Amino acid sequence: MKEPIVFNSRDVHLGRSRTRAVGCVPRSDLETSKYLDDDRLVVRCLVIVIKESLLTKTRVVCSEIDVPPSDITEHLAKLLEAKEQTDVTFCVGGETFEAHKILLAMRSPVFKAELYGQMKETNMQAVTIEDMQPAVFKALLHFIYTDSLPGLDDLEGDDKLEMIRHLLVAADRYAMDRLKLVCQSILGKNLDVENVSTTLALADQHNCDKLKDVCIEFIDSSDKMDAVVATQDYANLKRSCPSVLVDVLEKTSRFRKA
Amino acid sequence: MKEPIVFNSRDVHLGRSRTRAVGCVPRSDLETSKYLDDDRLVVRCLVIVIKESLLTKTRVVCSEIDVPPSDITEHLAKLLEAKEQTDVTFCVGGETFEAHKILLAMRSPVFKAELYGQMKETNMQAVTIEDMQPAVFKALLHFIYTDSLPGLDDLEGDDKLEMIRHLLVAADRYAMDRLKLVCQSILGKNLDVENVSTTLALADQHNCDKLKDVCIEFIDSSDKMDAVVATQDYANLKRSCPSVLVDVLEKTSRFRKA
Repeated sequence: MKEPIVFNSRDVHLGRSRTRAVGCVPRSDLETSKYLDDDRLVVRCLVIVIKESLLTKTRVVCSEIDVPPSDITEHLAKLLEAKEQTDVTFCVGGETFEAHKILLAMRSPVFKAELYGQMKETNMQAVTIEDMQPAVFKALLHFIYTDSLPGLDDLEGDDKLEMIRHLLVAADRYAMDRLKLVCQSILGKNLDVENVSTTLALADQHNCDKLKDVCIEFIDSSDKMDAVVATQDYANLKRSCPSVLVDVLEKTSRFRKA
Repeated sequence: MKEPIVFNSRDVHLGRSRTRAVGCVPRSDLETSKYLDDDRLVVRCLVIVIKESLLTKTRVVCSEIDVPPSDITEHLAKLLEAKEQTDVTFCVGGETFEAHKILLAMRSPVFKAELYGQMKETNMQAVTIEDMQPAVFKALLHFIYTDSLPGLDDLEGDDKLEMIRHLLVAADRYAMDRLKLVCQSILGKNLDVENVSTTLALADQHNCDKLKDVCIEFIDSSDKMDAVVATQDYANLKRSCPSVLVDVLEKTSRFRKA
């Protein structure tokens, strides 16, 4: 049997008016048309059964009420900003910061011990923080209340990384593991030949194993070792902390073998 | 021209040793092979140009340090659970709940006024909450601390919706707008002919305009009005709160015209 010719109403004019309803063809026209094969006309019908009324279904699905995203960190940020009902004051590098003891204790076991341990008798407390810049403590408080870093928009390139390095030190001091990982992640993404030695020393001092591995991987990548060795920071690292360089050399030689 | 025969080194043995380097074919073998067509051999070369060294690129991209998702609501949930350093106790339907005033005040202007307004002199406070079930207050506290509803897993179908309705009332009482929207959204998704009248009355009493609109849309959808009118809850609504039904009838007639 020949391949069927598929009827297309747009192609068929059969010599009559185009305004005729599609589908009505006089017998005489059909008998002279190409659709008759061996005096037979095969009509294949494709029937689509719609089991549900599409119209009804559309209307039963009512509008949904949108729920805005979580606003709890926004509430916490406002609480920090408004300084209402604070119960502790920190003196940091000549500046003062007011905060809520319960929130600091909730986020840091070190703050918890300091604020609810030896000093819990006094009502309003003043705590002096040594060896920290006010801007760093401010960013630390922001992270404690909101779980995110402040914009740091007024800081450019190196100053921003310097702030992140200070925050890593603060996170280690107050045992805030997630902040420590946030800082490690940013420093790991911003490694270059100039800063990798400083970052490696920092990672070594504050037990940041993941960042240490990324620094070593960076030095080993595309054989940057020579360029790194030529920097002043590498010379400082070699003098102050030679043990970490032993780790580097051991691991890079292992990488090369692998 | 005939279709080209694509050369496949695995198919070609040309009568010699298989150990010969692929690509080296003696002239005599080629001349007797099927690849010659009308004394011509067409060689098509596909050349891929790699613009950068893939090897170097792969090695410069160092590992990234993963940062776990925010854990602040986890910390808040633990704070509620541990009941440490709480400074207020609520008595609700014979049960007591300990909490932290600062967090309640941060999340609800009504709690803020109650806890830091008239009662701020006393140190440890006990507050009695009337007209609320303990389970509802417990869920309210969970939302205050974590911005999410507790599992409610031990509740089935209608009981769960009943809890959500009570929480909507509590959210309205303590001016917690997001919780109110969360409850409206759940009730809106679970409307049926049986519960729509009750939900509509609740939405009307607690100024939930969005839920009210969804209820009216539901009643109007596929002309459920007759089925709804036949329920006991509709009869109760008609007796207790006829004004809301006037809204329904006005809006459904407007929908039909549109």
